[in-house]
Amino acid sequence: MAKSSVREEQPAGEDLRQEIEKIAMAAREASHRLAGLDSETKNALLEEMAKGLEEGREEVLAANRADVEEAKRSGIGGALLDRLTLNESRVRDMVSGLREVKALPDPVGEIEGMQRRPNGLMVGRMRVPLGVIGMVFEARPNVTVDAAALCLKSGNAVILRGGSEARRSNAILATILQRALRKFDLPGAAVTLIPTTDRAAVTLLARQDKYVDVLIARGGEGLIHTLEQEATVPLFKHGKGVCHTFVDARADLGKAGEIVFNAKVHRPGVCNAMETLLVHEQIAGVFLPGISARLQKAGVELRGCEKARAIVPGMLPATEEDWAAEYLSLILAVRVVPDLNAAIAHIRRYGSLHTEAIVTEDYSIAMRFLREVDASAVLVNASTRFNDGGQLGLGAEIGISTQKLHARGPLGLRELTSTKFVGLGNGQIRS
Amino acid sequence: MAKSSVREEQPAGEDLRQEIEKIAMAAREASHRLAGLDSETKNALLEEMAKGLEEGREEVLAANRADVEEAKRSGIGGALLDRLTLNESRVRDMVSGLREVKALPDPVGEIEGMQRRPNGLMVGRMRVPLGVIGMVFEARPNVTVDAAALCLKSGNAVILRGGSEARRSNAILATILQRALRKFDLPGAAVTLIPTTDRAAVTLLARQDKYVDVLIARGGEGLIHTLEQEATVPLFKHGKGVCHTFVDARADLGKAGEIVFNAKVHRPGVCNAMETLLVHEQIAGVFLPGISARLQKAGVELRGCEKARAIVPGMLPATEEDWAAEYLSLILAVRVVPDLNAAIAHIRRYGSLHTEAIVTEDYSIAMRFLREVDASAVLVNASTRFNDGGQLGLGAEIGISTQKLHARGPLGLRELTSTKFVGLGNGQIRS
Repeated sequence: MAKSSVREEQPAGEDLRQEIEKIAMAAREASHRLAGLDSETKNALLEEMAKGLEEGREEVLAANRADVEEAKRSGIGGALLDRLTLNESRVRDMVSGLREVKALPDPVGEIEGMQRRPNGLMVGRMRVPLGVIGMVFEARPNVTVDAAALCLKSGNAVILRGGSEARRSNAILATILQRALRKFDLPGAAVTLIPTTDRAAVTLLARQDKYVDVLIARGGEGLIHTLEQEATVPLFKHGKGVCHTFVDARADLGKAGEIVFNAKVHRPGVCNAMETLLVHEQIAGVFLPGISARLQKAGVELRGCEKARAIVPGMLPATEEDWAAEYLSLILAVRVVPDLNAAIAHIRRYGSLHTEAIVTEDYSIAMRFLREVDASAVLVNASTRFNDGGQLGLGAEIGISTQKLHARGPLGLRELTSTKFVGLGNGQIRS
Repeated sequence: MAKSSVREEQPAGEDLRQEIEKIAMAAREASHRLAGLDSETKNALLEEMAKGLEEGREEVLAANRADVEEAKRSGIGGALLDRLTLNESRVRDMVSGLREVKALPDPVGEIEGMQRRPNGLMVGRMRVPLGVIGMVFEARPNVTVDAAALCLKSGNAVILRGGSEARRSNAILATILQRALRKFDLPGAAVTLIPTTDRAAVTLLARQDKYVDVLIARGGEGLIHTLEQEATVPLFKHGKGVCHTFVDARADLGKAGEIVFNAKVHRPGVCNAMETLLVHEQIAGVFLPGISARLQKAGVELRGCEKARAIVPGMLPATEEDWAAEYLSLILAVRVVPDLNAAIAHIRRYGSLHTEAIVTEDYSIAMRFLREVDASAVLVNASTRFNDGGQLGLGAEIGISTQKLHARGPLGLRELTSTKFVGLGNGQIRS
């Protein structure tokens, strides 16, 4: 659908357009209130939300059961159903998630790089909220709570658009959060859940550039591609992770085995799991047989290049599609490469700028990999699984951005803020 | 024009589309070379460019004379003609601009916030170039040289699209810069000037999201609006500046007079010049007569609200349009407001998030203004003219961004970079 034709081609959607615009305007209005809150008030609000969620857990579980039953009836199963399903323990995780965000330092109001200019003017950059954050996500209802907590703590209003499968769960969660807002005499529009499951609502939200400052898109490639084409609101893309580990000729093969196994097997369904293993040809013959057996024993299907298959006979052949694949499951592509340059060239061609790792004891090779490989995180002698807000010291995160502008890598509280220059003068003028 | 219809509706433009894509691809390729250059090489390249420009100044002036003659024939005059015109002194300014950028510290490779995680993994954020920067600008040919210098120093390739009036001047400047690139055996695609003056080229460039990382738009509201609607490449908007100065009841009226006069008169045609003066009603009767006379003597036309006109009888009445106007000339809107809240509300309603200043000796009022007013720069007791890369300590700038994401305020070298997380481990895995 073309950007400018949304309105003309969909006269039936005019009501929806007006509804989304109203939501966005109200969120903008609420954002001015939120920007002025001090940390103590925001922390007390998050505590109130945590308590509300503890008290309301039966309501949440009941709504979730209804979502899960409908999902089962419509044939949803496996990982998707698992992500949709809440239980006592998952609700407790949401509650402790709220308290974790409460405990994080508030970035708003910080002033960085304050300096005295030659004319005596003091200048620095003050952290300020972005304003209004739109958040489009899929089935997991806990994202409703996590995203709201991070947005509120950083002084932003948030407009949430969850998956339709979780609509009852999301609705009751939003209601509980809004009860807490009311107790603090704050506008409910500080956290809005878009009530309709009409898919057009996403595109309409993505065009509210007058009122929405950024849209965080967590979803499949189709969603992200549509938003890239249609959005006039800037996007933070939580893109796919085609992550590599390169085991260099001078790798410590003990470390390499642990890192490769961890990167693939620890949690294969997440974006920072390894999808392709690159092995230097000088050590492929020594390294591949052992790690292959260990991975296969853990249920990993291996798909290799010709050279890898010559070393590990049981390996299936990898096709061109395998090098670009984000499996998100127990499948691993394996390629033997002649040197560091070939590894970097492979990553540049097939990587998704998410997470890249090298295992080597060679200092110069490590430094070259660190400098020349472009990705949101580049790691030496560590598992790709470390590209994560908690692991990198940011605390809770709202997603991992694979783009270069504003925020790259895990999106924590600081990434949900902007800065403004502040100047403290005593009468300075330009001459 | 709708985003997705560019190709279908303009079969005649297919050649142009292919040409722009080819330019973008070549720039992406060149960007990998540039990202790997050390500061010494980049500085030597900038020095070579400075020398080339000194030696080629006759070529530049001849090309510029042809542009100026054509502009005169087509009826262009005044400020536009002035901005287009080069002379010996302006060429010297470009040469020294190159040397100023050469002298600035190179942000690429810096690592910020390196910390040791509990598991021993060292993590920090390394500054890296953005990659490929598109730059769309209007008549001033010096932007060609300034933009190229800043992009190259920060390790980026740049694609330039200047105004058609300056096409001969821009072409010879780009040729001179490319001669220097060749001497260093660097690809000419590191600095490309889009040769055609076809306006469709701008939209086509704005859709090369596969190869271009950001588009900097310096131009009129029409250009920026079109790009907001059509671009799939992220934008840095050099938006308009409707800048205010609020003279509070507790202002030092001596400072206030100097600051107001400077903000309006020092250089009225630039974006950080003041366009509206807000005056607290308690001091309006004392302050307005003197400053009005001084401004009028300097040729400033005053347009005021009822209360201001009651104090300064010669003042024209201000209309609703005046409050939103970016005059860029010797006109000033004047409004008397009852208090700080009214001043902040006026700025929120009519301001363009560019530069806002207060004059006051009241500490609490100053702090509230600093915190509650949202703009790329907020100043206390200083002229709005200080929102400038040089004045804020950033060195040379490529524009002033009025958006909140990635870069807000003057765009210096650091704003032309991104970061990547780097992790130095010794075998860490997630458990």
